Amino acid sequence: MNITHIEHIGIAVHALNQAIPYYESLLGLSCYAIEEVAEQKVRTAFFQLGQTKIELLESTDPDGPIGKFLEKKGEGVHHIAFAVEGGLQLALDQAAEQGIQLIDKAPRKGAEGLNIAFLHPKSTHGVLTELCCK
Amino acid sequence: MNITHIEHIGIAVHALNQAIPYYESLLGLSCYAIEEVAEQKVRTAFFQLGQTKIELLESTDPDGPIGKFLEKKGEGVHHIAFAVEGGLQLALDQAAEQGIQLIDKAPRKGAEGLNIAFLHPKSTHGVLTELCCK
Repeated sequence: MNITHIEHIGIAVHALNQAIPYYESLLGLSCYAIEEVAEQKVRTAFFQLGQTKIELLESTDPDGPIGKFLEKKGEGVHHIAFAVEGGLQLALDQAAEQGIQLIDKAPRKGAEGLNIAFLHPKSTHGVLTELCCK
Repeated sequence: MNITHIEHIGIAVHALNQAIPYYESLLGLSCYAIEEVAEQKVRTAFFQLGQTKIELLESTDPDGPIGKFLEKKGEGVHHIAFAVEGGLQLALDQAAEQGIQLIDKAPRKGAEGLNIAFLHPKSTHGVLTELCCK
């Protein structure tokens, strides 16, 4: 698998309107987009930091994945997304061949129009892992 | 605070000799250093990925910070470290002025000889946050 950089870090927060000011006033970052991903029941806020984005995730439904995460674990890092070159389906096939449990067996559309797929944290030493490809 | 990039992501794992092969064989990364930080009761393994390092953290003592984290939460992301320009003490003073709870009120030495300090996750929306400066 050819990974070039960390595309983003997904961080679950209770409320964007409380978390965004923290990232802007303390860390000096600038929120450049807020986007709702209805399928995932989240609203996302993006900050660019060098090669990597910080993606804040606010739940829009307590039964959605971020709603459940927040209820169980509270605010914190939800996933790490790696930028893959050479095609996402190929990367997924390679992962499956190595016995990695796939959450998505085929790429789907994520925020910012990227093709994405998730690997299960049981197979990745506890890190919910997203692969991204343009 | 002037943050240039994500310096590293710290990930707690049960055993480096199981986690390193995952990062090397699946993700195609190369472990370039293993270092013990006796004060923190950890052994660390480093991978460079674009601007950012992945720092795997294996506990050397169940009563150390990573040992306790693993017992409570299992394997997963432990902290995010931001690279700060302009001096670490200044950044800490700015954080304290904004009401952020500091774990380290003054810089101390971390892995790879960096000056580091941690901010408490209660003040940072659930993310144990490390600031690093050369």
